[in-house]
Amino acid sequence: MLKLYDFLMSGNGYKVRLLLAALGTPYERIELDITQGETRTQQFLQRNPNGRIPTLELEDGTHLSESNAILWYLAEGTRLLPEDRFERAKVLQWMFFEQYSHEPYIAVVRFWVHQGLTAEQRHQIDEKRRRGYEALGVMEQQLEGADYFVGGRYSIADIALYAYTHVAHEGGFDLSGYARINDWLARVSGQPNHIPITQA
Amino acid sequence: MLKLYDFLMSGNGYKVRLLLAALGTPYERIELDITQGETRTQQFLQRNPNGRIPTLELEDGTHLSESNAILWYLAEGTRLLPEDRFERAKVLQWMFFEQYSHEPYIAVVRFWVHQGLTAEQRHQIDEKRRRGYEALGVMEQQLEGADYFVGGRYSIADIALYAYTHVAHEGGFDLSGYARINDWLARVSGQPNHIPITQA
Repeated sequence: MLKLYDFLMSGNGYKVRLLLAALGTPYERIELDITQGETRTQQFLQRNPNGRIPTLELEDGTHLSESNAILWYLAEGTRLLPEDRFERAKVLQWMFFEQYSHEPYIAVVRFWVHQGLTAEQRHQIDEKRRRGYEALGVMEQQLEGADYFVGGRYSIADIALYAYTHVAHEGGFDLSGYARINDWLARVSGQPNHIPITQA
Repeated sequence: MLKLYDFLMSGNGYKVRLLLAALGTPYERIELDITQGETRTQQFLQRNPNGRIPTLELEDGTHLSESNAILWYLAEGTRLLPEDRFERAKVLQWMFFEQYSHEPYIAVVRFWVHQGLTAEQRHQIDEKRRRGYEALGVMEQQLEGADYFVGGRYSIADIALYAYTHVAHEGGFDLSGYARINDWLARVSGQPNHIPITQA
């Protein structure tokens, strides 16, 4: 059986849980508390030298890390990853956008707020929020006349972007002015077998 | 003919140039000076709403952005992207590692140093360098007993990681203690049709 090294609060972990639920794939979940250094032990660093969850352990004992690479691996050959070469590249475009222009601002601010801000974080938070809103602006524009991010169909690009967008308010982001994003969030949460981020 | 919106100093742009040179694919290069706001014009934002190079324009006028998504699109069906499902996911793992754990530190510090540090950048640079060295440590470990990052063969995972690693010293990173990385850099620069980052 697949094993998922995970942390319940993590949107990156949630992406994988959400996809596995959509696909109906059984798996064993191992919770590691990243705030207590549980991903920095020698044992875990052998599974992922970069010391991060989510990390997937396949049945042959090999490991795969980086949430969006795991999504790609698991979605290959399913309805959640298009077959067309250009659409597949567009799925990757939005997943790289998520990791470079979205997660470092929207996810990081949420994590800071949850943990309680340090003085250095208080110093940086306005700039992080500004760049988070830039990412939301790019998403709002992309959703003009489009129900989903790629090819008019629900895909792992939507799963990747949904994970931290739907909890952006926990980091103090106000999404009330983003009508298309709100409609899209409702379309994603209305998918069959949807689970909340709080569900293990 | 393919058109590449690019900025010569950019390692993200260089990834695409390096791959196109390896594949012998002709293209037109359009230089946009990111330091002069040339990727933030209304005209360019229609090509990439996220306002970044590299952006690839296909022959039908559609656009693809995010350097590693462009690499994937162009390498599909060539020797530079493995066919095996797990190896393909591993290529993505290293490309997401590059964009999340490597580029934001190693590339960003190089850019800051080139531009001349602001007071705020001077405040942040030690922490950025610390995280850049963490990424180099993960790479050095992965290259133990391995000539390349995935499957023992040169792939777009190597191209993605080479782009900013080989110019890390321009940001003040000292690579002298990273013997395996230095050997790997030499293997990459020894590939057929290799071009330097300074070559348009």
